[in-house]
Order: sequence, then C-alpha cells, then structure tokens
Amino acid sequence: MNRPRIVVDGMGGDGGPAVAVPAAEALVGAADILVVGREEDLRAHASAHSRLRFVHAAEVLGPDDSLSSVLRQRPDASVRRALEFAAAGQADAVVSGCDTAQLMALARHVLGMVPGLRRPAIAKVMRGVAGRFWMLDLGANLECDESALEDFARMGSVAARALGGIDAPRVALLNIGTEANKGPALLGRAAQRLEHAPDLRYVGFVEGNRLFDDLADVVVCDGFAGNIALKSVEGAASMATFLLRRAVTRLRPLQRLGLWLMRNAVADLAEEIDPRRYNGASLFGLDGVVVKSHGSADRTGFEAAIEEAIEQARSDMPGLLRRAFHDDRSAPRREEEKA
Amino acid sequence: MNRPRIVVDGMGGDGGPAVAVPAAEALVGAADILVVGREEDLRAHASAHSRLRFVHAAEVLGPDDSLSSVLRQRPDASVRRALEFAAAGQADAVVSGCDTAQLMALARHVLGMVPGLRRPAIAKVMRGVAGRFWMLDLGANLECDESALEDFARMGSVAARALGGIDAPRVALLNIGTEANKGPALLGRAAQRLEHAPDLRYVGFVEGNRLFDDLADVVVCDGFAGNIALKSVEGAASMATFLLRRAVTRLRPLQRLGLWLMRNAVADLAEEIDPRRYNGASLFGLDGVVVKSHGSADRTGFEAAIEEAIEQARSDMPGLLRRAFHDDRSAPRREEEKA
Repeated sequence: MNRPRIVVDGMGGDGGPAVAVPAAEALVGAADILVVGREEDLRAHASAHSRLRFVHAAEVLGPDDSLSSVLRQRPDASVRRALEFAAAGQADAVVSGCDTAQLMALARHVLGMVPGLRRPAIAKVMRGVAGRFWMLDLGANLECDESALEDFARMGSVAARALGGIDAPRVALLNIGTEANKGPALLGRAAQRLEHAPDLRYVGFVEGNRLFDDLADVVVCDGFAGNIALKSVEGAASMATFLLRRAVTRLRPLQRLGLWLMRNAVADLAEEIDPRRYNGASLFGLDGVVVKSHGSADRTGFEAAIEEAIEQARSDMPGLLRRAFHDDRSAPRREEEKA
Repeated sequence: MNRPRIVVDGMGGDGGPAVAVPAAEALVGAADILVVGREEDLRAHASAHSRLRFVHAAEVLGPDDSLSSVLRQRPDASVRRALEFAAAGQADAVVSGCDTAQLMALARHVLGMVPGLRRPAIAKVMRGVAGRFWMLDLGANLECDESALEDFARMGSVAARALGGIDAPRVALLNIGTEANKGPALLGRAAQRLEHAPDLRYVGFVEGNRLFDDLADVVVCDGFAGNIALKSVEGAASMATFLLRRAVTRLRPLQRLGLWLMRNAVADLAEEIDPRRYNGASLFGLDGVVVKSHGSADRTGFEAAIEEAIEQARSDMPGLLRRAFHDDRSAPRREEEKA
C-alpha cells in the first residue's frame, strides 16, 4: 500500500473543520485524504487549490446526543459517513475528534469487530526512556475478565510488532506491586493466562512509577486503571509545566540572560515533550483502523492523529489482528471457554 | 501539646539506623524522640551527645516475613515495640520505614482502630498548584464499598481541617470522567452518599489530569486506583527528570553558560520538587498516629516522615477522628446499615 486512503471526520472535536481541514491538508502528501462534513464549512477552511476530497454530510453529533440516537437517528452524521467509507472498503483508516463513547459505539456498529473480539480497546502509543510502548485499555472496558486482558495483550503485541518493529514484544500487566501475590485476584489469574499463551512474551507486573522505564513494550490494564494511570501522568505533566513556568517568572535579570542563552535547547525540549505530538488514541479490535483525536486537539495534534492512522493503515493492523485471533492456537482455547 | 512524643522504628527501611537515627537527631529540637531497635546499631549512628533516647529491641522484620509470623512470632520486633509505646500512651506518634503490609497489620493489631472504622487507609498529602490536598486510599483497601469511600472522605476531611486549616474541605472522588454517569457504578453510589453526608462538602468527580488543579482538598479513591494514580504521577515525574537530564547533556558551550547563570534558580526548583520532601504516608483510622516512611528513603526523606508525624501528633488526629466517627450524625446511619 503506497498511499493509504484516510477518511477524516471534518466536524468532530471542539475545533471542527477549522482544525481538521488544515491538519488533513498538511498530510495530503502522505495519503489520499477524504474529509466528510458540511461541505460549505469544510471548503471554508481549505486552501484554494486543495488536494483534499470533500464529501458532504449534513449532520454533526454533539456531546449531548445519546448513544441510542447516535446509533439510530443520525444516518447522515459526518463520523458515521466516514466510518461507512471504511466499512465499504473505500478507505483504510478513519480519524475523528468526536466523543469517544459515540465513536466507539458507531465504529462497532458500522465496522464490526475482528472475529473473536467483543469490544474495542482504547490504546495509545507512549514514549518511554528507550522507545515507544503501547498501553491498553485506556477507558473502553471498565470491568474486564482475564480473557479480555489477554485479548488486550495480544492486540498490543500485534501493534508493537507491526508499528514498533519489535520481534517479541514484552507484555506486562499494570499492577500496584511486582510480586505475584500483589493486587486484585483478577490480575493473578490474568498473569497465569499470559504466562501460558505461546504467542505472548509475558514479563510480569509493572507499577506506574516504572511505566516509562523500558520494562515492557505492551502495558495491559482494564479501562478504569488505564484511564486513571494515563490521566494521572497528564496531571503530573501539567503540574510540572506549572512549576517550570512559575520558576521562569521568578528569574532575576542575569538568570533571564541564562535562559535566553539556552532558548534553543528549551525550544527543542518543549517540542520533544509537546503533548500534541502524542495525540491520537486507537480503537483496537475493530475490523478497521479508527483513530480518535482528542476533542480539544489543535491542528498540530490532529495531524499527529492522522499520522497515527496512516501508520496503522500501512501496516494493515486489522488484517494482522484477524490473523492473531484466528490461528490454530486461539481456536481451541475459545472453545474450551464455552464449555 | 508542646513537645510531641515521637517513637521511631530505627530498623525499618532499606537504610535502617543509618537513615533513621540521623533523621531523628535532626528533629530532636521539635519533639521528644525515642528510637527503638538494636541498641548497638542505633548508638553507632548517633552523635556523641545525642539527645535521642534509645530502647533496645532485638528483632528486625524483613520483607519476606509473613504477616502471620510478624503478628504472632516476633514480639521483640522494633516496629512492634515502637507501636506498643503508642498503645500504652507513652508516645503520640510512630514512624517506621518497614514494609507497608507488615506495618498495617501490626498497627491494627497493637493500636486498634478508631471505633466505627474497619481498616486503615493510606493517605498522603500532595502539593498542587494552589496548596496541599489529601489523597486516600493509596493501597490499603483494594476493593471498597461506598461506605468505605465515605469513611475515607470523612478521614480526609478531618486531616484537611486539622492539618491544612481548611474550614470546609472540598471532597472529590477520583474517576475517569466528571459527568455523573461516568465510571463504575460504585462511584455513582459513593457520590450519592457523599452528597447527602451533612458533614462533608462533596464537589464531584475529579480526573487524574486535574489532580493538581486545586479542584479539591480531599481526593477519595479505592486503594487500587489510588496506588495506580500516585505511582503513575511518580512515573511521569521520573520520566520528566530523565528528559531534563538528557537535555542538559546535550547543551552546547554557550547554553552551558546559560545554565550556569541559572544555577541558583535551578537549585531552588530542584529543592521545591524534591520528592524526598514529600516522603511519609499516613495510616488513617488507627487509634494512634502512624506514619510510613518509604523503604528507600534517605535521611532527608525520613525527616519529612517524622515531621509529618509531629504535625499529626500536635493536631491529635486520632482524637479528631474518634469525634468525627462518633457524633450524633453517624450513629443512626451505622445502625441503619446493620438493619
């Protein structure tokens, strides 16, 4: 696949087309990009000779629309139309900034799941001290049994292999201690399963304070714990930013000169840790690539989400997931569960 | 109470007496401090004219000692002897760096709980953008019902009032969204209870990314979520430190000069965010003040834990907790629960 075909929901997210259209335009060299939404609004934010394609969709979902109305009464919503392009095989990936629950429900309804999987998991690629790692679930599944956690481990391993080029990704379970008897009983049972899965390389429990220390390539957790962990990391980052900014306001003249001398290094670091560069959560397990951009993303953030979608489309993540969940190994295990 | 009487377990923690004794000595001006442990080891780390008092205890607990052996077969363990001083009314607070589960089990056994409470909660004072807040439980109670969460809210409110001087502390529940229907059903039920408790000022759900934003003075969670959140914050802090250090190694000569000009500001900030200054988790709900120092704490960290104990002893936290859990309001509610 040389030029992945990406469909962008031009109306999702707080910024709507003012964010989505310029972001899509910035990446039109890397992919064929179709933007769905109110055509007039979309074109208003496009350049005169835009290489984007636009498809009109009259409806825009709001955060207060109930899931049942989203599923049953909004056939011409931009995000739904975007997903339908993927379901019809006319697009390789979908990017939207709309509400997560709405996107999940619609994506599951329109695209369906990879056979053998029940619900999507929200995954995010994170950057640690020695490279990237994948963390899931981050909020789609609040209560999980050990079988769901094993599914997450397998999906994360597929991603780390396909997107990270890691041959045998190390899988860890997020827990509150590293000893085998620590944490809820569910995690002990999940550890046993992961240890015995021949296609997974389980390395044990990991605690939040070691999350970034290159102990694992895939960190698995239920959606509640994952969401708490991810947002706590964000909270710590925003507290750190606050403290740094306040320290800058307190600098004396010579210290300000020092900061000025360092300005390029500070700018490099600021760019390196810019959270917008890490925007884009993936819905793994769907029979298609769907990337969720943060509702408050700006153009830079939305671009990162489109880039994530391009990367996954190039790797054919859904095809890899189908194979991972349909080989000889998993079939008997799934039968045995039913018994 | 002018000079609180503090008893320090001199043998707990990785550093043992080499950490605990010098830390205690640094604070001997602020409190009467008794150090319990192998007297020879303790004295070896004390100054020649130390004003500390030493009490010999022959046994030292190790991390591999089972809870049942800790409870039944180690009568002369330093931490147990320390707790017994508090139980006998001869000390106002206990500080130990020993294993958390061992300390909790022993403290509950030796000191007992404030009537009406079942198990201690681990609480920590955190520093946000506008002041301190208290977060609990951080790992003592992995599964909690709404009644336990209400207990935590009440204990945290007592602490914020007594230690933080906050008249009507704002209580929030840690969750993965702020809307009423977000998160596990348990949190919805807990929210209802907190809203109807006349002695609590419940302000809603708080997410991890807003933890430090001065939205609440007391953040309540079950021990699993709290531990995940706290450690994820620590993980983010250590990742930030790693990135800053690496950025420093990459500085060019003029940028190094800039850093040198800023060295005092950098040192001030480093001191301000020094995690050792925030060492010391409290076991709330015990009929006595018990502060747990991190196992890996150094002298500066251990001092912070002793300071926390002094502050709680001065405020008579156990007395305040007894009153908070024994007034007219709580009695009927507790009866009704039994029915």
